[in-house]
Amino acid sequence: MSASGAIRPSEMNAEIIAVGSEMLTPDRVDTNSLFLTGELNNLGIEVVAKHVIGDDRERLAETIRRAVKAVEVVIISGGLGPTEDDVTRDSVAMALDRRQIFHPEISDAIEDRFRRMNRVMPEINKRQAMVIQGAHILANDRGTAPGQWIEEHSGVIMILPGPPHELKSMFTRQCLPRLARIMPPLAIRTLVLRISGMSESDLDQTISPIYKRYENPATTVLAHNGDLQVHLRARCATEGETMALLAEVGGQIDAALGDRIYSRNADPLEVVIGRKLTEQKATLVVAESATGGGLAERVSSVPGSSAYFLGGFVTYASRLKTDLLGVPEDLIKQFGAVSHETAEAMAIGARRRTAATWAVSITGNAGPTTDGKEAPVGTVYIGIAGPRDTNVYHRVWPASDRTRVRAFAAQMALDMLNRKLGV
Amino acid sequence: MSASGAIRPSEMNAEIIAVGSEMLTPDRVDTNSLFLTGELNNLGIEVVAKHVIGDDRERLAETIRRAVKAVEVVIISGGLGPTEDDVTRDSVAMALDRRQIFHPEISDAIEDRFRRMNRVMPEINKRQAMVIQGAHILANDRGTAPGQWIEEHSGVIMILPGPPHELKSMFTRQCLPRLARIMPPLAIRTLVLRISGMSESDLDQTISPIYKRYENPATTVLAHNGDLQVHLRARCATEGETMALLAEVGGQIDAALGDRIYSRNADPLEVVIGRKLTEQKATLVVAESATGGGLAERVSSVPGSSAYFLGGFVTYASRLKTDLLGVPEDLIKQFGAVSHETAEAMAIGARRRTAATWAVSITGNAGPTTDGKEAPVGTVYIGIAGPRDTNVYHRVWPASDRTRVRAFAAQMALDMLNRKLGV
Repeated sequence: MSASGAIRPSEMNAEIIAVGSEMLTPDRVDTNSLFLTGELNNLGIEVVAKHVIGDDRERLAETIRRAVKAVEVVIISGGLGPTEDDVTRDSVAMALDRRQIFHPEISDAIEDRFRRMNRVMPEINKRQAMVIQGAHILANDRGTAPGQWIEEHSGVIMILPGPPHELKSMFTRQCLPRLARIMPPLAIRTLVLRISGMSESDLDQTISPIYKRYENPATTVLAHNGDLQVHLRARCATEGETMALLAEVGGQIDAALGDRIYSRNADPLEVVIGRKLTEQKATLVVAESATGGGLAERVSSVPGSSAYFLGGFVTYASRLKTDLLGVPEDLIKQFGAVSHETAEAMAIGARRRTAATWAVSITGNAGPTTDGKEAPVGTVYIGIAGPRDTNVYHRVWPASDRTRVRAFAAQMALDMLNRKLGV
Repeated sequence: MSASGAIRPSEMNAEIIAVGSEMLTPDRVDTNSLFLTGELNNLGIEVVAKHVIGDDRERLAETIRRAVKAVEVVIISGGLGPTEDDVTRDSVAMALDRRQIFHPEISDAIEDRFRRMNRVMPEINKRQAMVIQGAHILANDRGTAPGQWIEEHSGVIMILPGPPHELKSMFTRQCLPRLARIMPPLAIRTLVLRISGMSESDLDQTISPIYKRYENPATTVLAHNGDLQVHLRARCATEGETMALLAEVGGQIDAALGDRIYSRNADPLEVVIGRKLTEQKATLVVAESATGGGLAERVSSVPGSSAYFLGGFVTYASRLKTDLLGVPEDLIKQFGAVSHETAEAMAIGARRRTAATWAVSITGNAGPTTDGKEAPVGTVYIGIAGPRDTNVYHRVWPASDRTRVRAFAAQMALDMLNRKLGV
């Protein structure tokens, strides 16, 4: 992953503080701050410092005290649980020198939530009903701990829950509108191009001569498991200027990349495919071996996918390829389970068995080992059977990482199907 | 996610400070601190705070000043480049109130490095030859910027380069041996218990009376999509003492939780199940609707799972439940696709169709919407068909988040299967 182009200074600065000793272990990364940084930047607010602080009241209070003095926006996430180690409420109260007040209506709401799950609220959860004096309560529609919005003469302090889905929902619905009211208007728009079928360095080499000529929009190139994104973020005084700038730079990148761009509105491949299948009144079935359900999982992750996605076969054992998809035993014996022939027969069999318009098959060796008779680790065959014909695609990834080979294979299968579905 | 039982104070604490405005964008994460945390923990040094600070001399100096007062080990990474924006050297000098001294031999070494790449050293690179008064120079064998090791009466401050391969090499070769000399020898071991089938707060209420009585081992509770972990980290002078302590505390937690602990060696559910199936020479097939392949994906993520995992059916469309699994159309009409009866028939059908020893089915409504005729969002039925009988389990999650309902459902299905498989 690499980032190109930096964001320019603005009128308002922010610090983000993540709380919790579990965030200070060798395998945990604070991702909430990435989401929050993106959202703040979109409003023209710069993040100038981030902190992760363990469960220590004094240390956290001191960090908050300094942040409140230094910047206009302070966001604190986590440490709102019911236990003694959840220190955020106490530390904010200490830092701002305010009292905490018990709100019975919050306690009742938490109790209700437990009751709906047929459980009794543990006594300690009452702690979560303590609110800093003068704070606005931010309701939590995804969990028990409410958030708090506190205004000081110098700026605003937000307390948000740590679990990412709770934090995102609360920030988007309740904090963004409040922040937007106190920020000077700036028209910021991001153009997201999504690209498949080329490497990150090829992509960067192709487009960097274009984007390097511009400070505005800021350009970022992201890569994840074979899926590439180019983000162009433009900020001007008016929407008209912003859109004109994006059209100017985006148009040049578009011309350089052509059909390797599969999405110009941030939609992932599975959504793009879903839209095409819906428009074409077509249906899809998948038959997977190496990816073990990962392709079906991705296709069905799209809300409403039941309109076109019939389902799939996970034929992990060779016997199931024969029993469920009708791949001849002899064919597997002759060519191997990881072969052009098997991929083709899997796709044809899945399509015939379900009467779907399209069938996509994946067979491969994701590793970590091979028994020597099989195709080498990283080998993948993808079959696509459609109304007119069946095609098979072949690829060998040098990666010996099982998870990555599986993710790359699913991505390539979706990319190939998308190309077959046309524009 | 919340952590219970903070890490207890040790003889030595550390803070890690990453420097650079480029680390404060929405898509960049500081990974150096993860490496450093692991290495420090191995020496018995706790990391109690992490910071990411932009290119601002005053803000960085203030953060360093506070860290030096609060802990014994301060590691600062990045900001050692040759430009005006590389503020680390100046900020450390300000924070410690020491002068910087130009070292011509460093300047010469950098000039040599450029010459070997057939380039001329730009004048600004001379900045990289500035060294804090009294610091030991840490040679950089992977790049131009040398590091610095500074001892204060209160502890030690390390300045390391930002690029991960430079930092790792310098820390491992030059800082670790120095740190080891000043640290008392300590045997550190972690016991990981994994738990399913209870909520995080129930878990904490059950075990906190036990772990709260101990500062050593330090206890952390982690929760992710219905999967819970308890980490007990013990530190004693000898391995024998450490293991005895873990046995003492772990034994009490074990007794309190009983069969809700599914793993005592950090293995996830899918690995535990895989081991049992292998031992019992049994095979598994899955039949999924709501989870759309996610259950199969998890089972097959285990290397070597082909020994017991035959495969699965993703019967997203009702028609496929009938065609592939033999669920009677009338049954679906009468009870609905999301029902006890359908889950049962899916499991029985999958087992019969593949002759697997065990079949697990999931049908549910993961949302985001329901058409009113269906079961409400969050409703999940899980069927388990085995050699003796078939059981169906039912759960409604309040979460309206599609991804989470799917993850919870897969977790619960694996948990139920694991219980059926016995010890």
